[in-house]
Amino acid sequence: MCNACLIENVRKSAMSRRGFFARSAAAGVAAVAAGAMAAKPALAQSTGKVVDLTWTLTPEFPTFDGMPGIEFAPDKDYAADGYKIWKVSFFEHSGTHIDAPAHFAEGTNTVDMLPPESLMCPLCVIDLKAKAAEDPNAMVEPEDIEAWVSANGEIPEGACVAMNSGWGAKMGDPSFRNDGAGNFAFPGFAKAATDMLLEMGVASIGVDTLSLDPGNSADFAVHYSWLPAGRYGIENLANLDAVPAAGATLFVGAPKHGGGTGGPARVMAVV
Amino acid sequence: MCNACLIENVRKSAMSRRGFFARSAAAGVAAVAAGAMAAKPALAQSTGKVVDLTWTLTPEFPTFDGMPGIEFAPDKDYAADGYKIWKVSFFEHSGTHIDAPAHFAEGTNTVDMLPPESLMCPLCVIDLKAKAAEDPNAMVEPEDIEAWVSANGEIPEGACVAMNSGWGAKMGDPSFRNDGAGNFAFPGFAKAATDMLLEMGVASIGVDTLSLDPGNSADFAVHYSWLPAGRYGIENLANLDAVPAAGATLFVGAPKHGGGTGGPARVMAVV
Repeated sequence: MCNACLIENVRKSAMSRRGFFARSAAAGVAAVAAGAMAAKPALAQSTGKVVDLTWTLTPEFPTFDGMPGIEFAPDKDYAADGYKIWKVSFFEHSGTHIDAPAHFAEGTNTVDMLPPESLMCPLCVIDLKAKAAEDPNAMVEPEDIEAWVSANGEIPEGACVAMNSGWGAKMGDPSFRNDGAGNFAFPGFAKAATDMLLEMGVASIGVDTLSLDPGNSADFAVHYSWLPAGRYGIENLANLDAVPAAGATLFVGAPKHGGGTGGPARVMAVV
Repeated sequence: MCNACLIENVRKSAMSRRGFFARSAAAGVAAVAAGAMAAKPALAQSTGKVVDLTWTLTPEFPTFDGMPGIEFAPDKDYAADGYKIWKVSFFEHSGTHIDAPAHFAEGTNTVDMLPPESLMCPLCVIDLKAKAAEDPNAMVEPEDIEAWVSANGEIPEGACVAMNSGWGAKMGDPSFRNDGAGNFAFPGFAKAATDMLLEMGVASIGVDTLSLDPGNSADFAVHYSWLPAGRYGIENLANLDAVPAAGATLFVGAPKHGGGTGGPARVMAVV
């Protein structure tokens, strides 16, 4: 099938889903989210190889505000107690982590309320490395989604769509977060792209950078539209070069603390 | 095949693995652990149904020491900041959580070092409900493992073996933790059983109670043998009635904070 045909098919499919979402909207955000999260993990073709997409979280891990995202205090230790326990404190949006809808929209799903079905889903990876090498604030635009569909077929309903900007290679370097002049600079999603993914019934978006929006965003347009629509995000993904553009199954080990707005997660893929 | 033949086969298989472990031991605990964690997720037969085996973690969740396991402090809020973030503090061994080898054995794998392959594995569930209804400190004994093998076949290398004692039904009631006289009372594993599972190459054990050892344990014999052998544990599993004795694939979303001895995890199964 030609690219134009494929894209037209996606548009038609999105149109029919748009009808579903319009109907669901009457029942509120939760119903819309549930509708978007009905994907069945596509595991039958799996080779069983596990790829860890999670960074190790330490006090040195880069954060949006530049402060340590996690702290450790000793609680029990081998010599005195016979075993060891840390008291761990973190700001929820640290490390490889979830943005739950409630991070930006009061009254929507907190992290413990994410439907388990949305945490095991097909993974679609959009390669933004060439664009990001030219522009540190490059964005996943609608044409990048269309190119992915042309190459790989329709994006499954309930999928996670992740941006691989190549930023993982910058981990540990100031350029992971800032440009040479000290301004935030990293790739993210354009709202026009996530609006398209909303209509396609995608359950979550992921980035290998600090934020769903690009570093130079003035309005957090993706945070303020994607999350209030009942979908979730994953920030600071690792190892996206080790998974294929299509065909992997994602396992999102979202934390389940009551009322949380997100938090460090264990994210793995089976390819 | 008759039960006796099955068990004999398991014993022979364990004998051959014993040779492997003896050889690996020269290379230290890490090598032994890696050897035990080579299982490939058995997903080909999956229906794709996701079962969440994780309790929501709140300050009211029962803990071993009776103190709150998690605390929340406001960091950012909608009205003042346009979005919400909590600062979350927890004692690592709270909620549905991992016991990493380093919880009881200095110098062994911390929670961030668990091989990802060991976090997606076949799940074997031993039904201990009848025994536990008679004795709140009932233990999974070698004969319970033998009975499971007779009914379900060999335990796959790299599997997680979980005890379903029915304790999940007591959540929220003092009897989840104590007997009528205020003594610790809940089911767990017997060391003779986990010694057998070590030889079988099992990667992890799980319980639906507060501890791998039963409540009346005086010596934490399982903690002090299973964890130092490089294997890990999962405590406070939920919903074990919703997964079959054999055939489910477990996804263990272990936390990945650097140097941790364990911590709250998102645990799900695909059946």
